[in-house]
Amino acid sequence: MIDSVVGAGGARLAVRTAGDPARPPIVFVHGWAQSSLSWAAQFADPVLTTEHHLIAFDLRGHGESDAPADGYGDSVTWAADLAAVLAYAGRPATVVGWSYGGLVITDYLRTHGCASLTAIVLVGAITEIGPGRPGGKTARAMVEALPDALSDDPAVAVPAVVSLTLRTTAEPVPGPLAQAWAGQTLRVSPAVRRALFRRDVGSADVLSAVSVPTLIVHGTEDAVVDPAAAEYAAGKIPGANVRWFPRVGHAPFAERVDEFNGVLRAAAAEGGKG
Amino acid sequence: MIDSVVGAGGARLAVRTAGDPARPPIVFVHGWAQSSLSWAAQFADPVLTTEHHLIAFDLRGHGESDAPADGYGDSVTWAADLAAVLAYAGRPATVVGWSYGGLVITDYLRTHGCASLTAIVLVGAITEIGPGRPGGKTARAMVEALPDALSDDPAVAVPAVVSLTLRTTAEPVPGPLAQAWAGQTLRVSPAVRRALFRRDVGSADVLSAVSVPTLIVHGTEDAVVDPAAAEYAAGKIPGANVRWFPRVGHAPFAERVDEFNGVLRAAAAEGGKG
Repeated sequence: MIDSVVGAGGARLAVRTAGDPARPPIVFVHGWAQSSLSWAAQFADPVLTTEHHLIAFDLRGHGESDAPADGYGDSVTWAADLAAVLAYAGRPATVVGWSYGGLVITDYLRTHGCASLTAIVLVGAITEIGPGRPGGKTARAMVEALPDALSDDPAVAVPAVVSLTLRTTAEPVPGPLAQAWAGQTLRVSPAVRRALFRRDVGSADVLSAVSVPTLIVHGTEDAVVDPAAAEYAAGKIPGANVRWFPRVGHAPFAERVDEFNGVLRAAAAEGGKG
Repeated sequence: MIDSVVGAGGARLAVRTAGDPARPPIVFVHGWAQSSLSWAAQFADPVLTTEHHLIAFDLRGHGESDAPADGYGDSVTWAADLAAVLAYAGRPATVVGWSYGGLVITDYLRTHGCASLTAIVLVGAITEIGPGRPGGKTARAMVEALPDALSDDPAVAVPAVVSLTLRTTAEPVPGPLAQAWAGQTLRVSPAVRRALFRRDVGSADVLSAVSVPTLIVHGTEDAVVDPAAAEYAAGKIPGANVRWFPRVGHAPFAERVDEFNGVLRAAAAEGGKG
């Protein structure tokens, strides 16, 4: 089901839901130039959808959400957008952030602290961004894709986007899925793709103040976000647990569906005790 | 606004609407491996949205609609899907079909005749499909894109899809729009892209029975669907008018927005007299 919420500045944000609205919510935040469809394997899991209300939204400028001219470089805007989705969830939620989605969660924490959160799960995530920021350290595939993947020119952008897509996972994803992921990226306007990188944010103080159970999931072979970014967040967030996925790349939730979904359920249950 | 209707076999079809629900509806049917977003320039037109209720849907397997395993080669299924959208419109409508969308309209006519239709507008459209079918004659860019654009392998499919996208218009479309169009194509699964071509359908008898005002719009430089396909439909449909767009390719509604929207309003008005 597709619904919508009103985010910062009146932007309409598309929300995809599954599962039982009476069960504890899990809110999913996708990464740079992707969409709520990233979480297809979670939305298709009969156990997760029985035990939880799953809510994934499209970041502003992505998927079916509005693409306002601005807000992409502003922590307060991202915080307000996620706050709108958490309000839609209607009760405290486990929040899951992939890649840039981890930065959006950190934006939320910066403004709202852990209000409305029962647990945090960071997956292949960054929590900072900008030159030399340890919580935002990208890895080889992302470094090599930039700046080409941000170009207005299809002849420049498309090969870079496809190459980055194919290096998202450690083992090749099936070709049709790789095409779908690349398609999601290409439908995000190059202007928005660029705007998300135009930030310089440190988060040490924000991470140190986290007061809900936090799980950090990272593939040891992640070629997009460096495992050092996970280590940084793990070192700052009080009591954070780290779960390394060996022989896995940037998308543990797609590369090891059953294992990831089990870990997610456990993290949500841990948060539910609080 | 995104809504949905239930098409053949229970498939949920995404419906995008704009304008005034009290005004005469115009239903838009997009082409192969595209989506309801094809009609962005119509949905953004203040005159069209004042005078009409605009309703565009995503064909099964496309955009935000369900992608069932089958139905893509079956005239009766396509007819039922369009019938569901026309029922959603709530009153007789002008129906606009681009490219493969013209074939879907013809599928509807085959089963339902002109029931619920006030006018038909075919744009760069086919009305038949299969080897040697004159109403389905493709042009050079499409011939050259196949079969590569149907491959599961991104290395084969992506360059073919991008090349076809860039040849959709006579003058280059802006790079970001070309990337968005290619992105829409890539998110349609290769299996669905292939299935739409697995048909062999003649439509001479169906076209001869059309009893509502029909306008055929075609760019003289269309490199995807041969202008001969337009001439064929024009020769079969009683009283059909043809409007050639000189120096325009396969997407008159995007290449000449104002002119196309004016022609569309006139066609809808002509149908409204009936």
